[in-house]
Amino acid sequence: MSTSTLARMNEPGDLARAFSEIWNGHDMDAFANLFTDDAQMVNVVGMWWHGRNEIGQVHKTLHSGPFSDSRLSIQAPAVQHLSSDIAAVHVPWRLSGQRNPDGTPDGDRDGILLLVAKRDGGDWRIAVAQNTDIVPGVAVPKAPG
Amino acid sequence: MSTSTLARMNEPGDLARAFSEIWNGHDMDAFANLFTDDAQMVNVVGMWWHGRNEIGQVHKTLHSGPFSDSRLSIQAPAVQHLSSDIAAVHVPWRLSGQRNPDGTPDGDRDGILLLVAKRDGGDWRIAVAQNTDIVPGVAVPKAPG
Repeated sequence: MSTSTLARMNEPGDLARAFSEIWNGHDMDAFANLFTDDAQMVNVVGMWWHGRNEIGQVHKTLHSGPFSDSRLSIQAPAVQHLSSDIAAVHVPWRLSGQRNPDGTPDGDRDGILLLVAKRDGGDWRIAVAQNTDIVPGVAVPKAPG
Repeated sequence: MSTSTLARMNEPGDLARAFSEIWNGHDMDAFANLFTDDAQMVNVVGMWWHGRNEIGQVHKTLHSGPFSDSRLSIQAPAVQHLSSDIAAVHVPWRLSGQRNPDGTPDGDRDGILLLVAKRDGGDWRIAVAQNTDIVPGVAVPKAPG
């Protein structure tokens, strides 16, 4: 496991770096610990999770399945302070090594992860996260229906 | 134009209601005015806009095209205060009446809009927005590649 899981989150951008390092180590207890107790997360297909426990459990399942060998690489996080204790962190990412339900390798995906970080005592944690896939070449999607 | 465009944004949830009312009135100057000057927005296909001016301009273009007859209906916004002056607002929505590039009607879409609201003087404004389509029946997407 990366030492970053034990590292202090001294600034909001540390959460983005820890998010990817812990993802790639697949330690979902450490992953859950990045979030506040009452954190909320919406994933790229609009699943909406409430609380650190649910976020951790769902990611344990995903990292035992399609994400078990996945690798998340991130660009430098863009940090915007909204107050001294709250910041928005935008993290462009690429996910490689995801597997299809039948176990075959899937292609890479790119996206933008938003973390709303909150200072909790000395450390920053993720209070709200929302993730969106980048679909190149369009401004609005084709409706699924 | 809806009177809500002139109304005060006394609480974070007012922004969600104004967002949909103004969307449906297609007044993108009023729409832009919901945002802080340095707001950031990521749309459902991962386009990332910086600043009220860019957000307003892009939406003027979209509401002269695929969204010109679209109607956004929202469920009750879920408001979580992160501090006295900052709140996360989750807004489940349905968009009807979008048109394809060839002008034909497109199907409905559902999604979840996250607004990070900040009190700016007496009024709340949108500091950060991120939008994600709901893709039913899957936890993770099929990669586009």
